[in-house]
Amino acid sequence: MIINTRYYFDWAATALPEHLQSAQVFANPSSQHLEGREAKNALEQARETCAKSLDVKAETLYFTSGGTESNGIILSSLLLKKNKNRILYSAVEHPSIRDNCLGFERIGFPVSAISVENDGRINPQTLENLIQKNPDTRFASIMAVNNETGAIMDMDAISKTIRQNQKAPIHLHCDLVQAVGKIPIDIKAWDLDSASISAHKLVGPHGIGLLYLKKPIEVFLKGGQERGIRPGTENTQGAAAMALILEKYACPDTVISEAQKAAERWQHLIASLKTIKRCSLIPEDRQELDRRFSPWILQLRFHDIPGEVMLRALDNEGFAISTGSACSSAIQERPVLAAMGLDEKARLEGIRISQGWTTTMQGINALLKAIEKILDFL
Amino acid sequence: MIINTRYYFDWAATALPEHLQSAQVFANPSSQHLEGREAKNALEQARETCAKSLDVKAETLYFTSGGTESNGIILSSLLLKKNKNRILYSAVEHPSIRDNCLGFERIGFPVSAISVENDGRINPQTLENLIQKNPDTRFASIMAVNNETGAIMDMDAISKTIRQNQKAPIHLHCDLVQAVGKIPIDIKAWDLDSASISAHKLVGPHGIGLLYLKKPIEVFLKGGQERGIRPGTENTQGAAAMALILEKYACPDTVISEAQKAAERWQHLIASLKTIKRCSLIPEDRQELDRRFSPWILQLRFHDIPGEVMLRALDNEGFAISTGSACSSAIQERPVLAAMGLDEKARLEGIRISQGWTTTMQGINALLKAIEKILDFL
Repeated sequence: MIINTRYYFDWAATALPEHLQSAQVFANPSSQHLEGREAKNALEQARETCAKSLDVKAETLYFTSGGTESNGIILSSLLLKKNKNRILYSAVEHPSIRDNCLGFERIGFPVSAISVENDGRINPQTLENLIQKNPDTRFASIMAVNNETGAIMDMDAISKTIRQNQKAPIHLHCDLVQAVGKIPIDIKAWDLDSASISAHKLVGPHGIGLLYLKKPIEVFLKGGQERGIRPGTENTQGAAAMALILEKYACPDTVISEAQKAAERWQHLIASLKTIKRCSLIPEDRQELDRRFSPWILQLRFHDIPGEVMLRALDNEGFAISTGSACSSAIQERPVLAAMGLDEKARLEGIRISQGWTTTMQGINALLKAIEKILDFL
Repeated sequence: MIINTRYYFDWAATALPEHLQSAQVFANPSSQHLEGREAKNALEQARETCAKSLDVKAETLYFTSGGTESNGIILSSLLLKKNKNRILYSAVEHPSIRDNCLGFERIGFPVSAISVENDGRINPQTLENLIQKNPDTRFASIMAVNNETGAIMDMDAISKTIRQNQKAPIHLHCDLVQAVGKIPIDIKAWDLDSASISAHKLVGPHGIGLLYLKKPIEVFLKGGQERGIRPGTENTQGAAAMALILEKYACPDTVISEAQKAAERWQHLIASLKTIKRCSLIPEDRQELDRRFSPWILQLRFHDIPGEVMLRALDNEGFAISTGSACSSAIQERPVLAAMGLDEKARLEGIRISQGWTTTMQGINALLKAIEKILDFL
């Protein structure tokens, strides 16, 4: 539809950019005129595409501004509960979950961290004991893949443990940000009540994410959009980009084949790193091919070289790596590594290497060469 | 900087899109490597540009996903206050403020609406009485320009009234979404404690907004980004677009000259509408040139024609208009018009016409002709 043949008098809903010819990329999907309806159609088509890729119903998906906001919507909804029931979260959750549980403690909610094993994974028995000890638990947040170590949680066993031990329904929330498009996921089999997804971890744009909700919930900050779940003018352009990305990268066949290729590259990287004396993987017993970990993320350390120093040295050599989560990299604490039992020195030495679809074996060899060069100096 | 000459191993922070050559449009500004630092520079340059356009210091601006989220950050920060002090909000606030005050009432906060005059504007005397009657008031949310009627609040007088009558500091929050780029604003002279701005009302992309904060506050949902105020990976592309838009449209000279042109078009529209018997402006005494109202927004009604019917009829003729706020247009209630004293029939007849920089006198004449044609039928 060419907008120029029409007259637009709804600037207060959303402005009409001069250079845009297509209604669906600018109009406010909540507007009732033709432009608004076209935007709404584009938004709903994007939702359908995302739903197909994730094997869920379209009506269970809500567009948000990203993973952090999706997590925030779920957490803040707890404020409306009549009783302040116990909140559980894995000790290795993303900062957007972990840090905010402190806010809930401050306003009187009982909150407990689910401790992890030395490999950074939850032992279902630990979770069972925690729920049995705290029958007032009504909410648990457990990420599928840890963003710092790549540890894969056994969501199937975790979910069954929760369902078998809950005294009353426990809302199971899962941060899928590092899982979607990277490892096979099964939202339905895992019986998730809610889940968070981000586009920019999947080469999509910043500022768009998804919230999965098995059933609608009452949210704390209300608005008319996204069926009352996420207020604010819908980001139709972002939603369309999210749909393209999920369609391209998140369908099960692609995920399995790309994860296989990633695992082959990681196998070579890990085997090579294991020959370097000063290098320890985190955890130390991580194997070349290891089903406990995502083949896209690797946490490791070089003895007596602070992670920050290694990061800067590799940066100078032309390699972009990180220490922990970018969302908390300004902070010296490494709560994920602490939860895995690493002492302070080891924690400060930790670095994270993470790869993507376009990473090559040649790039990994170049990285290994750069590491050797740096180790000769330091 | 050409990314191809470097190796990117920080996919877990943000993915590296194949087609992007420039770090600043993709990297995570919280990452410490070169790509992250370049993204951070781009983000801070965008913030500087926005600050210059708004005549505030760069450190008072925080990028958010839009006006609604900016409003939500301010509101939810009240949850952390030790005492549940009174919240005031104008009876004509945007749904993202008004609807959410109900949430605060539910959890025990005393909340009062500031009533408006028949023209939809706050009488400072009303506000003075309300504050004197409620010395426990510590927060007031008052929008600068109403999104449904264009009513301009006298923020200067309102601010002075608050400062002169407050028993202890009252946080004055101002929704500037329909004001920035449209009428002259003065964040410093109005002594605002916080303000919300959206890009897409100014031909910018959806999904990016600003929160102005005179001083940092403690927010409810925490995270490392945007100096702890707005968690979630920063939307650098959106921030850059916001900066371009504010630079182009929001500097004082441009605002004054564009508002003058808009007023001339509105003068012609209003004068012509006043000759149509079945047409009433809302409020009825709105003048052709009227300093009480934004020259970008007009609320009116056609007697015995429901607004929804007029919207559909104009849509069929090729004109996009709205009834009320797109953010609540699905809802039949018109709380803004109710606050102005309109009865239910009149409220349901209300429509909104809003213009922008590219609106022409020819477009307004075409609209008037279409209205006449429709009135001949209905």
